[in-house]
Amino acid sequence: MSVRSIYAAVLLAGSSIFAPAEVAQAQNVEAPSPMPALFASEFEMSRDLVDEVMADGIIVPVPKDPGGGYTHEQHKLNFRVMYLAGDLYRITGDEKYRDFVRDMLVEYAEMYPTLGDHPARANQNVGRLFWQVLNDAMWLVHSIQAYESIRDTITDEQRDLIDNQLFRKAAHFMSVDSKRTFNLIHNHATWATAGVGMTGYVLGDQHLVDIALKGSDKTGETGFLRQTELLFSPDGYYAEGPYYQRFALLPFMVFANAINANEPEREIFQHRDGILLKALRTTIELSYAGQFFPFNDALKEKGLKTAELYEGIAVAYAETRDPGLLSIAEWQGRTVLSEAGMLVASDLAAGKAKPFPFKSMLLRDGPEGKQGAVAIMRTPSPDGESMHGQALVTKNSSQGMGHGHFDKLSWQFYDNGYEVVTDYGAARFLNIEAKEGGRYLPENESWAKQTIAHNTLVVDEQSNFNGDVELASAHAPTQDAYVQREGLQLSSGSIDTAFADVAMTRTMALVEMPGSEHPVVVDLLRAASDGEHQYDLPLHYMGQIMRVGFELESFTDTRPVLGKDNGYQHIWVDAQGAPTSSGNAFITWLLDDRFYTARWVPQEGAEAILAESGANDASFNLRREPMLLQRVRIAGGTSFVTLLEPHGKFDGSAERTTLSDSLVASVNHDRVDGADIITITMKNGARRTLAISHNPDDAASHSVIVDETEYRWTGFAAVIGAEGDK
Amino acid sequence: MSVRSIYAAVLLAGSSIFAPAEVAQAQNVEAPSPMPALFASEFEMSRDLVDEVMADGIIVPVPKDPGGGYTHEQHKLNFRVMYLAGDLYRITGDEKYRDFVRDMLVEYAEMYPTLGDHPARANQNVGRLFWQVLNDAMWLVHSIQAYESIRDTITDEQRDLIDNQLFRKAAHFMSVDSKRTFNLIHNHATWATAGVGMTGYVLGDQHLVDIALKGSDKTGETGFLRQTELLFSPDGYYAEGPYYQRFALLPFMVFANAINANEPEREIFQHRDGILLKALRTTIELSYAGQFFPFNDALKEKGLKTAELYEGIAVAYAETRDPGLLSIAEWQGRTVLSEAGMLVASDLAAGKAKPFPFKSMLLRDGPEGKQGAVAIMRTPSPDGESMHGQALVTKNSSQGMGHGHFDKLSWQFYDNGYEVVTDYGAARFLNIEAKEGGRYLPENESWAKQTIAHNTLVVDEQSNFNGDVELASAHAPTQDAYVQREGLQLSSGSIDTAFADVAMTRTMALVEMPGSEHPVVVDLLRAASDGEHQYDLPLHYMGQIMRVGFELESFTDTRPVLGKDNGYQHIWVDAQGAPTSSGNAFITWLLDDRFYTARWVPQEGAEAILAESGANDASFNLRREPMLLQRVRIAGGTSFVTLLEPHGKFDGSAERTTLSDSLVASVNHDRVDGADIITITMKNGARRTLAISHNPDDAASHSVIVDETEYRWTGFAAVIGAEGDK
Repeated sequence: MSVRSIYAAVLLAGSSIFAPAEVAQAQNVEAPSPMPALFASEFEMSRDLVDEVMADGIIVPVPKDPGGGYTHEQHKLNFRVMYLAGDLYRITGDEKYRDFVRDMLVEYAEMYPTLGDHPARANQNVGRLFWQVLNDAMWLVHSIQAYESIRDTITDEQRDLIDNQLFRKAAHFMSVDSKRTFNLIHNHATWATAGVGMTGYVLGDQHLVDIALKGSDKTGETGFLRQTELLFSPDGYYAEGPYYQRFALLPFMVFANAINANEPEREIFQHRDGILLKALRTTIELSYAGQFFPFNDALKEKGLKTAELYEGIAVAYAETRDPGLLSIAEWQGRTVLSEAGMLVASDLAAGKAKPFPFKSMLLRDGPEGKQGAVAIMRTPSPDGESMHGQALVTKNSSQGMGHGHFDKLSWQFYDNGYEVVTDYGAARFLNIEAKEGGRYLPENESWAKQTIAHNTLVVDEQSNFNGDVELASAHAPTQDAYVQREGLQLSSGSIDTAFADVAMTRTMALVEMPGSEHPVVVDLLRAASDGEHQYDLPLHYMGQIMRVGFELESFTDTRPVLGKDNGYQHIWVDAQGAPTSSGNAFITWLLDDRFYTARWVPQEGAEAILAESGANDASFNLRREPMLLQRVRIAGGTSFVTLLEPHGKFDGSAERTTLSDSLVASVNHDRVDGADIITITMKNGARRTLAISHNPDDAASHSVIVDETEYRWTGFAAVIGAEGDK
Repeated sequence: MSVRSIYAAVLLAGSSIFAPAEVAQAQNVEAPSPMPALFASEFEMSRDLVDEVMADGIIVPVPKDPGGGYTHEQHKLNFRVMYLAGDLYRITGDEKYRDFVRDMLVEYAEMYPTLGDHPARANQNVGRLFWQVLNDAMWLVHSIQAYESIRDTITDEQRDLIDNQLFRKAAHFMSVDSKRTFNLIHNHATWATAGVGMTGYVLGDQHLVDIALKGSDKTGETGFLRQTELLFSPDGYYAEGPYYQRFALLPFMVFANAINANEPEREIFQHRDGILLKALRTTIELSYAGQFFPFNDALKEKGLKTAELYEGIAVAYAETRDPGLLSIAEWQGRTVLSEAGMLVASDLAAGKAKPFPFKSMLLRDGPEGKQGAVAIMRTPSPDGESMHGQALVTKNSSQGMGHGHFDKLSWQFYDNGYEVVTDYGAARFLNIEAKEGGRYLPENESWAKQTIAHNTLVVDEQSNFNGDVELASAHAPTQDAYVQREGLQLSSGSIDTAFADVAMTRTMALVEMPGSEHPVVVDLLRAASDGEHQYDLPLHYMGQIMRVGFELESFTDTRPVLGKDNGYQHIWVDAQGAPTSSGNAFITWLLDDRFYTARWVPQEGAEAILAESGANDASFNLRREPMLLQRVRIAGGTSFVTLLEPHGKFDGSAERTTLSDSLVASVNHDRVDGADIITITMKNGARRTLAISHNPDDAASHSVIVDETEYRWTGFAAVIGAEGDK
């Protein structure tokens, strides 16, 4: 049986670079040539790493340290290097790699039966080799693949030892001792079932395969197959967000590949309408300029250049031959040393890549697609390139479990290669000892998860669901509309459970404007309530303020903190003011070579606050980032209408600046009979009206009269041009 | 006569891409082929721009607006486009370009005699077409080159009009009405003399050439030749710094090229030991990762990718054929449409480029090299690449005139592609109307120029020379040593006039340490004084704090300002503490994927302050950047000893972190008989001593005993290893 695709296919296809194991005997291992460039560089990198580690001898320490500590890092290194050494053995046939894997597995086999729970257990899911069972599962997924590469070439005695003392015991630990994790519908269980299932294939143990696929009780209520049904939405969205989706994908893709090789009759890649390949594709779509949208506890360093996706792209390409995936591999500059990786490298070298067509899409959340959605609305950059154009992202999705943030109806905006309207992501410096041992920082709870740290409404300085994860997990928003029509992309969602007394509806759109190179973002947030509340609507942005349209009271020589709790304690106040109309309610900032103006329609009595994160942060754990806050205290609900307008160009090198000031003169908002009419008037007189009926019936006609002008449209929303101005 | 090299040489050399003007008649202008790629793309870019501007017709408005305003920008656009249209005419022979230049010059010729002083005069140096004469000079330098391209092909009447009503009058304005500027030893005068001299060559007016070269009185006391002697030091350093050097270079190179073409017997490029080519090379050396060291009023957006350097590289390459210049052109991705530009493009295409060998060097300042110096000490990055390795820069140079900053003995440090220890540069958003019309901001005076905004000593919260430019210009530091020996690069300078009662000596070194991949920076600053003073030594750095070695009192919920004046009013205080030894006197920060630890030897009673710029900045004019401040109040002088140690690697993508904590255990400093002994002890026990005699005699032997250990060395300074630890 085989879990890692062998190279036979490549050999049959006419290539002769892989020497059969029994032939090659060279002492100095060189890349067999000719190899396609990407594969060759991967080969060399892996060989250099493995050779370097092998030079230190085999080091299998007794487990002791928590994440980031010495034994933790050594066992991580071991499974990674064994995995690569297995690849190198299959490619080169050089027995030193075989011997290294074998000898290391023998050492593990001798130690493993002596281990109890890891001494640095972090939680109830304790591992043996590592402080948590998740890491043990990752060890198993990699090590079993390494073992497969050499298993046929070792002595019976060695095979017996490794089979029974190491892998059977590890699979038992994973599936029986750690049954709780094993039977979860959770990415930790995906790693666990993948490890156990692949062990089953390699050892020829169908029982292990069966429980991996269908859960400990083999009913299919849990297990790998059920995970593919429940962990992804029908659109391939994973509730925790792309950062975790990326992490979860590796065991999904690798185990699926093994299932396909061993039991092709299962048609695993066709299962549930091809959900696994869809999920891989969705992971890519949930990125901008190569970095993932940092939903929930995401580390912003993570993007498409990660080991999980090198493997994922290779498996998916081998299955689909989608030329867009090749361009992702090209951009990654990496692949894997499997048959699929060879195919990626060969086809890339043959010029078969096409740009990955990033596009607008609605990704429903929840196993049945009924727990809200994420909408991605893209506009290619003026040069037609889709990787650095605009992306407006609305997050109307479910809580995303324990790593979820309290950010119902939040949004982000990307443009010109940058995250312009930002999401903080997680407060964590991964594996940096000085920062709480590399774990989540206290500020992840006190700031990053709080509602005020996101681009969405805060009522009475409280976070959504008062920060209660259980409650939050029980209530997802609804996605009320997703519109794509000429000159307009729009997403609308609502939730009435995030705050006890306030129902929120948010409609966000990308609207093309005459005379403007870039579409503008329109944001309409309606808070409905009978009571009186303080409403704060933050806008977290990146850039330096160029112009503020209204008079400011500035805190220039002592800087106060905005509040006491729920993230407010981390906000320094720079200045505040009270703009009176959309003509002066704006700030303009510069980010790289483009200007952005956020403009809003201030409510009667509203204030605007300019602020920065970083207060009450004695350990310098937070990044210091600017924000704008619209604040109003009002009874009976209110609407926030905000416009974000990219404009102009700053070319410091050529000393040329164009359109550094907003092109918009005013924004008007009227609410008539439940419809919202938002009119944007440019300084050159051009005008566009975004009319929103909130009625999802595409065919329904609407007519509203505002100031003696009649607006007529059909469907949920439309953009209406001024008379003769098209 | 010719100011812009004609293409005859290219034609003779066998290329046939340039059609003689009288032959080509095509309506749709295509790039003649084959053209080398860089030239072809430049051609296409220029053609597209010129065609676009031509489509709008000829627009020559009556001068009215200041910098950044409409008429200002239009006249700038005009000279740029005329210049390119002249090139296009010579390359393609297409008469539409000739006609455009001719017709625009006719319009200028009709308007020019009617103009008086520009209505928006900014200062005493008022222009005609622009608010300041400098811009008029730039107009002349470009327009006369455009005119030369077409002058032989227009009617006598047209030539008469343009010669006499425009260029003679412009040259007269420049050399007679603006005599004060014309006869300065200053880059504005370089533009003026270049414009007038090139006008002389084109019109065949030797008088104009003579005054351009030798000043209004033709004595040679002023004028272009004298400028080449006084504006650059013997090492090609320009006192205002590289940002201005880049700007000044264009007229130097372009006029020198014209002189060479018309009067080769002057051997202008050999003048003063080849100073012009040396200055071009020095400009490149004064950069890191393509950006200039931001000395004085520099805009950090500016680097090697600027029009001035496209032209300069082309002229210098044609003269020297230095293959290192080709790699700069390749990195710029630009060239110019002259014969020299063609040569650059051809030789690049022929694969003749070699990496520009950035290296360590001392650049003396002052016309005779006696006004201090700038030292650049580089270490290639571990992969041998010289553009992104280490660069330690010590600025012991003269004031640099009105754009100079009060930063005597300041320094910067670059590593891993980043500015790690930073210089603020100028407080200015060039051409951004909202920011004081794009002019220097008030904060340029109140912050950017002040001593506290730089990495150097502040005494009693006063800036150098109490901020008096005249006084500062009269006193340059001395460069006392520049050492390059095994394992050590060092620069030492001193000045005793910057503060009334305090003499400063600063010695900075890059020292290789055993077991450390990166050399460390050692900084010894000695302040000698009889009186009692408060000494503040700031370190402006880029990155996020990971660890602080000592206990902090943190201002977490109201943030005070450090002081009242001389830049102190712009500093927010985050925290303060009082470390007691080099073991705990440190902070570690992360920048991109590398860690840095600044560690110092605290004096008795010293404090350390962690702070950030941005206080008293109601208009958000400042960038907010962190700093560390060592502060001590003491009588009889003191020494500051600081170590900067790059270490480790943070790989967020692979989730691997190594050596995130400092490798250094302690730093000891002893001052014995005027010598300084600084010993760095690593946590692994390795030890290195930097021994500084301060005696410039290379042959002199020194011996010092500290704690019963004898240190022996020769020369100004040396690194001494511990017994048997090499």
